[in-house]
Amino acid sequence: MGFVGAGSDVSTLRNELKSAHLSLSQQRLTQPALFPDPSIIPVGVGFLLWGAPLRETVSILAEHTPAAAWLFAPRQPSNLATWTREIRRATQGKTKIWIQIGTVQEAVFAVRECLPDVLVVQGQDAGGHGLEQGAGLLPLLPEVLDALAPVVGNGISMPQIVAAGGIIEGRGMAAALTLGAQGVVLGTRYLAAHQANLSKGYRDAVLRAQDGGVSTVRSKVYDTLRGTTGWPVQYGGRGVINASYKDAMAGLAMDENKKRYEQALKRGDAGWEEGGGGRLTTYAGTGVGLVKRLMDAGDITREIREEGVACLKRAAGKL
Amino acid sequence: MGFVGAGSDVSTLRNELKSAHLSLSQQRLTQPALFPDPSIIPVGVGFLLWGAPLRETVSILAEHTPAAAWLFAPRQPSNLATWTREIRRATQGKTKIWIQIGTVQEAVFAVRECLPDVLVVQGQDAGGHGLEQGAGLLPLLPEVLDALAPVVGNGISMPQIVAAGGIIEGRGMAAALTLGAQGVVLGTRYLAAHQANLSKGYRDAVLRAQDGGVSTVRSKVYDTLRGTTGWPVQYGGRGVINASYKDAMAGLAMDENKKRYEQALKRGDAGWEEGGGGRLTTYAGTGVGLVKRLMDAGDITREIREEGVACLKRAAGKL
Repeated sequence: MGFVGAGSDVSTLRNELKSAHLSLSQQRLTQPALFPDPSIIPVGVGFLLWGAPLRETVSILAEHTPAAAWLFAPRQPSNLATWTREIRRATQGKTKIWIQIGTVQEAVFAVRECLPDVLVVQGQDAGGHGLEQGAGLLPLLPEVLDALAPVVGNGISMPQIVAAGGIIEGRGMAAALTLGAQGVVLGTRYLAAHQANLSKGYRDAVLRAQDGGVSTVRSKVYDTLRGTTGWPVQYGGRGVINASYKDAMAGLAMDENKKRYEQALKRGDAGWEEGGGGRLTTYAGTGVGLVKRLMDAGDITREIREEGVACLKRAAGKL
Repeated sequence: MGFVGAGSDVSTLRNELKSAHLSLSQQRLTQPALFPDPSIIPVGVGFLLWGAPLRETVSILAEHTPAAAWLFAPRQPSNLATWTREIRRATQGKTKIWIQIGTVQEAVFAVRECLPDVLVVQGQDAGGHGLEQGAGLLPLLPEVLDALAPVVGNGISMPQIVAAGGIIEGRGMAAALTLGAQGVVLGTRYLAAHQANLSKGYRDAVLRAQDGGVSTVRSKVYDTLRGTTGWPVQYGGRGVINASYKDAMAGLAMDENKKRYEQALKRGDAGWEEGGGGRLTTYAGTGVGLVKRLMDAGDITREIREEGVACLKRAAGKL
């Protein structure tokens, strides 16, 4: 399932949902078992709660009802409960609630207060925005599951657990399922899909990057340059280290750095140029080195599934 | 297999190896298949190459030959090759060479230049020392394996791949094997073993800590306080966030912080006290929240193996 990234701005969401509904009506006919209710648009929408307007969002979703709403980065944790309640009310529960967390404490709060349908457990390897401090999925997923076990019961049910952060291909998918997830989500990998709505410069920078543990960094520098400064203080965006970041670390004043960024913007795809001169932001996770080819989005999905299943069989075969 | 942590100081290594030889001769009788050569001491020794003296080390290992030497943190990458060659020569290859790396680039260098028997791939979740910047095992292990594939051949063979960093119990072990590792190493988990040589205050702090993504941090503060300042600049030590770290972040001068640290040292186990007053270092990985009970080291090992196998079977059973 794909997600529309509304983020903090829902001004184009209505049109995007209409367009998704239209273009996916074909696929729906071929997958009636997955999305049997034709009034539900078979995509999700991602919201950044610190910036998205609740009232307007709810009125859009009541009219154009997506299969899922993914809630992330509230200004206050209690906002998660408000959004969950209002979306469920407006869509008669047709829109499933996905809540993304990055710590054990956030997981327990979200499940207890919101009863989400899906809990997205995001590890530190994720690209783009996430908690500045955090664990990778390998220790995080098991600890979240253990912490939730005593929380469920008495009307609180265990959500589906979906893993995010550092999963690029079948081995990562298989590992996440082994750790106890029911599903996985991938962002960085689909940056190299034909269907991804991003510029060639960005995509080429993703395909070029290797060894993402050292070639990417989670930082607030990219937000500052881009003017996306509404994020709560605990979040940072992971991107490929570029000239903007290196200059900021070397002490260049942010005003001057921003000027250079604006100049790079005018250069289009060349603003991501290879060899240290690139200044435009390449949000990507530490697994970016495993993204090796531009592919069709559907082929990526099928390949990951097949590789993941083969990988689980191989691991079990060693026993 | 256990490892003696020589670190950067081999002054007690001779006696430790003698003592290990003596106490393990009993177990050897029960596991002749694992360690058939009675002249090899069935333990490994870990060395920090930036500080350990090569000549002295080699002369000790020639006399008291351990099954493995674990090489980590060279001042220059080329030191790995020198150590590998000298240890193999002095022990006629009886001591297997384990090299620990934290990036794809380091992995390719180590395999090409040293032909290690074992490559330890350390992810960012590891406790104690590791690269300040790095990826978790979920993306790191597959990228290392892919990068090594074209390196092997023509006399360079693929080492055994052992995963480190964030593995605490069976689920982590199973995930690491699924990602392509042949084995796993654990540090943080064994801090809560009866046999571990650490103070009760440290151990209790490990058992208390939860949500290690936010309750631990990789930093140079702990090294500075402890006076272990010989580490190359790219390394930091991950430990549980304590009053020393918080004071340093709040701008307390290191001189004064060190004074308070020295005072805490005099308080013994109370120097790790609960509730924000603890100042002594609790090196631990982000999986520390999964360490829940003090156990016998052998029972930990057996439990992890059984859980890991069960976990792989469970995951494969879903297919």
